[in-house]
Amino acid sequence: MSYLITGGAGYIGAHVVRALRRAGETVVVLDDLTSGVAARIPEDVPLVVGSTLDRAVLDGVLAEHGVTDVVHLAAKKQVGESVEMPLLYYRENVHGLQTLLEAMAAGGVGRLVFSSSAAVYGMPDVELVTEETPCTPINPYGETKLVGEWMARAVGRAHGISTACLRYFNVAGTAAPELADTGVFNIVPMVFERLTAGEAPRIFGDDYDTPDGTCIRDYIHVADLADAHVAAARKLAEPGPVRDLTLNIGRGEGVSVREMIDLITEITGHRGVVAEVTPRRAGDPARVVAAADRISTELGWKARHDVRDMITSAWAGWRHHRPQD
Amino acid sequence: MSYLITGGAGYIGAHVVRALRRAGETVVVLDDLTSGVAARIPEDVPLVVGSTLDRAVLDGVLAEHGVTDVVHLAAKKQVGESVEMPLLYYRENVHGLQTLLEAMAAGGVGRLVFSSSAAVYGMPDVELVTEETPCTPINPYGETKLVGEWMARAVGRAHGISTACLRYFNVAGTAAPELADTGVFNIVPMVFERLTAGEAPRIFGDDYDTPDGTCIRDYIHVADLADAHVAAARKLAEPGPVRDLTLNIGRGEGVSVREMIDLITEITGHRGVVAEVTPRRAGDPARVVAAADRISTELGWKARHDVRDMITSAWAGWRHHRPQD
Repeated sequence: MSYLITGGAGYIGAHVVRALRRAGETVVVLDDLTSGVAARIPEDVPLVVGSTLDRAVLDGVLAEHGVTDVVHLAAKKQVGESVEMPLLYYRENVHGLQTLLEAMAAGGVGRLVFSSSAAVYGMPDVELVTEETPCTPINPYGETKLVGEWMARAVGRAHGISTACLRYFNVAGTAAPELADTGVFNIVPMVFERLTAGEAPRIFGDDYDTPDGTCIRDYIHVADLADAHVAAARKLAEPGPVRDLTLNIGRGEGVSVREMIDLITEITGHRGVVAEVTPRRAGDPARVVAAADRISTELGWKARHDVRDMITSAWAGWRHHRPQD
Repeated sequence: MSYLITGGAGYIGAHVVRALRRAGETVVVLDDLTSGVAARIPEDVPLVVGSTLDRAVLDGVLAEHGVTDVVHLAAKKQVGESVEMPLLYYRENVHGLQTLLEAMAAGGVGRLVFSSSAAVYGMPDVELVTEETPCTPINPYGETKLVGEWMARAVGRAHGISTACLRYFNVAGTAAPELADTGVFNIVPMVFERLTAGEAPRIFGDDYDTPDGTCIRDYIHVADLADAHVAAARKLAEPGPVRDLTLNIGRGEGVSVREMIDLITEITGHRGVVAEVTPRRAGDPARVVAAADRISTELGWKARHDVRDMITSAWAGWRHHRPQD
């Protein structure tokens, strides 16, 4: 077996590369390095710099590396940017996957793990989001992920490609400081940035219908997430009929924004800093927590790291990348 | 104002061209003629033979004809084929629209009427389907139509393009024999084909939970449908903010398959022919009938033709195209 990891130089992609290598697999990375970082890839892993929009590059990689399995993570992933630049998101996320699926069908590559998102659910009004909760995305980012699932399933059925669509909840932490998320689009790095600048962390609304009034999310350590990709890929490779898995990847536990900020200030040595409450952001649901039973039943996977692990490792990564802070 | 009609050589497209011309508008057609027929276009209407996947062709048409409004009908539309060939459907229907929207945004074209479908609703379990009924398409054709709506709305919002997504229910009939549907994918021509071959029309299941056990649909005359496009385009052109309309186009009246077959056998002079009942087809909902209030309120449009008009005109079209029958 030989794995192609698209977007393998990204934060999550690099963790998937690492997890597959630890599991003894052969890996090749395709990444256009617009947001990925080549240094995240081990030196003995081939890195092809190119786009999933480029059919010739895809055909070349699949053939030259004898690819049998694809893990497709290459995508744009900023919700706000997707509202401003929907054409970019549809092109990169939808047409990129279309081109990949065309290349896989033509090349006889029979297994695909697809990076989806809890954003497909939109504003779920349930205690726990199951894989059967209706999908009603509310921004182009979430739309492109749901379309990607539809395409993957339909093309899989028509062309005999087994698929696993993994719906990530809120990813945080790092398995190694050098692999840390260097963006500041998620709560953990956003709070790090405020704290190290001497500013109060922000809470976007504390009048939600939740116990402490702040939004509740389900955080998952990126190392656990990466292991789920390995488990999903292994499942698809088992003998049997063409598979079509759709799986939440979360811990099944809700943590509020205020609880996160309290933990982050404690772990980073900023205990006592008081968060500033600002108005709600548009499109933030009060509560998004995964029902995480299906993945456990289907793959035998369970999260091993708690929120404290995520913050502690992310903080080590932050200090690695920004030693001046 | 100058209208580009993509897919204008198709059955519905040619009716839209005709309706816009009768309303005094200037029209240019883009059609790749894979299923469209050039003879359906009036001789004094420019026909550009090309695909909406071809950005250079689009840029040329928009600039040369000073296009201000686009009615986008070019698409693949066979449900069964979409299951067999999802990559074709995603490419033509989704990437075709993506390319068109990119060209419109670049060329500053500010209005789009998009051909959507009741297929976006999937298997609705309601008496009347409103525009707020959840969209859960069950095949790639319906998926590509829902994605098209999402793209059109998101790109419209980001780039100042007013959009009208028209969800067609079951289209039948013709405004002129030479413009008739020449395919046999819908019930009216399917029954014509059986009757003229001396075979019994088929009913796919008579054990549905409906008064006569056969499926109920909402039929709309293609001439009424075409007029709705004119009304939608006119609405988008009114002064005011960027608009974002989503409208069912149906009559709001359910007709069962058995009622349709009875009417068709009567109108075509085959009264007394008994239909043959075969098992259900997968993916056929028992009842799909539009709530048609919104389009009437928003556009002042109302259907003028009943089912008898649809069958009578379609039969004249059938005899025109197959005089040997």
